[in-house]
Amino acid sequence: MKILVIGASGTIGRAVVAELAPRHEIITAGRNSGDFRVDVTDLASVEQLFRDTGKVDAVIAAAGSLHFGPLAEFTPAQYALGLNDKLMGQVNLVLAGQHVLNDGGSFTLTSGIVSHDPIVYGSSASMVNSAVEGFVRGAAIELPRGLRINVVSPNVLIESLASYGPYFRGFEAVPAARVALAYSKSVEGAQTGQVYAVH
Amino acid sequence: MKILVIGASGTIGRAVVAELAPRHEIITAGRNSGDFRVDVTDLASVEQLFRDTGKVDAVIAAAGSLHFGPLAEFTPAQYALGLNDKLMGQVNLVLAGQHVLNDGGSFTLTSGIVSHDPIVYGSSASMVNSAVEGFVRGAAIELPRGLRINVVSPNVLIESLASYGPYFRGFEAVPAARVALAYSKSVEGAQTGQVYAVH
Ligand SMILES: NC(=O)c1ccc[n+]([C@@H]2O[C@H](COP(=O)([O-])OP(=O)(O)OC[C@H]3O[C@@H](n4cnc5c(N)ncnc54)[C@H](OP(=O)(O)O)[C@@H]3O)[C@@H](O)[C@H]2O)c1
Ligand SMILES: NC(=O)c1ccc[n+]([C@@H]2O[C@H](COP(=O)([O-])OP(=O)(O)OC[C@H]3O[C@@H](n4cnc5c(N)ncnc54)[C@H](OP(=O)(O)O)[C@@H]3O)[C@@H](O)[C@H]2O)c1
Repeated sequence: MKILVIGASGTIGRAVVAELAPRHEIITAGRNSGDFRVDVTDLASVEQLFRDTGKVDAVIAAAGSLHFGPLAEFTPAQYALGLNDKLMGQVNLVLAGQHVLNDGGSFTLTSGIVSHDPIVYGSSASMVNSAVEGFVRGAAIELPRGLRINVVSPNVLIESLASYGPYFRGFEAVPAARVALAYSKSVEGAQTGQVYAVH
Repeated sequence: MKILVIGASGTIGRAVVAELAPRHEIITAGRNSGDFRVDVTDLASVEQLFRDTGKVDAVIAAAGSLHFGPLAEFTPAQYALGLNDKLMGQVNLVLAGQHVLNDGGSFTLTSGIVSHDPIVYGSSASMVNSAVEGFVRGAAIELPRGLRINVVSPNVLIESLASYGPYFRGFEAVPAARVALAYSKSVEGAQTGQVYAVH
């Protein structure tokens, strides 16, 4: 398969590429790195990306940021960061990709454990990750031509504990290589509309 | 209790008022109706509402719209309608209300069955309703002073079948009076962070 990985230079993206590269053709894209440059928050940039890559069989999104902060001080603009970036960035890949993926192709998006297992400072993360999962359930039943869509919900990664560890005390961190298996299951399996929890 | 109902003139809001008015003081608010006028999509308008009402014990949100349409033609601006209105409108009530509710007070928001049981044309509804539920899980663990927050997820209402019936074939529609009980459970019970499904 020809697989486009957005965010391939990231902690999850690198593990996904390592898992899939031995048996597939991988094309990478990122804001500042990869075979192609794209800003997923901009639909026109995503449409240009698909013109550049040509037809692909799978799109994996391992990119997306949001704001962490106390609920007492959160502002609408801070929620908008995550809604525009992690949520709509991934949605834009589907809006544009649904018209250009090969028949039977797949989208695999990324949410996170905080959608259902909240942490302090994480009201936007719970909101945005749940929104991604809801969008996947909704989109799955409308995609044409046998296209599929799933979302991987990773626990905090062992590789990210140095940055995020203090927010995730007591969470049983998972290795990136284990998270990468869920992307393989989505791309190389046949299910759709699923949330693959790697918790 | 002193209970502020946003969207009290609506199909759900009227049933909620009928359930709670016999034993509580009800204050109503809406965009074009009610004791007070408010546009929940505007945080400044919500802050003004709470200055007008004074302290309350419970806030119920039964307002919020979003766009329905085919995934193949959906635009980012159409998703933004639901994110700004049904999602951020309800979030604004919590952002402003957390500082002014009486100790032990509660927020009760509204999502919808489509968060987990998708319908054709409903990718925004699945996204937005899931986002509301995720926000509630996240906010519940950060609210101070014993404040609580829950969300009611109604099935399609019998009273709304004339408008929405064709989108919800096979769904077992529920009476508004049954949905209203879930708001009572949230306000008059002691749970927090819950999704009350009335399916
Ligand atoms: N790490 C964890 O523990 C963890 C756990 C659960 C969920 N997640 C989620 O998984 C996703 C990836 O996390 P990560 O830790 O692997 O991230 P990361 O290491 O920060 O990598 C992010 C990747 O996304 C790309 N990117 C960022 N913004 C972009 C944009 N607007 N357009 C295109 N590409 C963009 C970056 O490309 P450039 O470097 O070229 O800019 C980079 O390759 C995030 O949504 C995160 O919330 C992570
Ligand atoms: N009806 C159903 O079958 C059903 C099922 C599941 C979920 N829901 C959800 O439940 C919620 C209420 O539904 P409904 O059918 O009861 O709605 P509705 O009959 O259309 O009533 C909407 C109410 O919200 C108020 N409102 C609208 N926009 C507002 C704004 N920006 N600021 C303040 N108030 C505003 C309206 O006030 P004015 O009249 O004064 O403008 C009205 O009182 C919606 O989020 C809907 O998605 C409904």
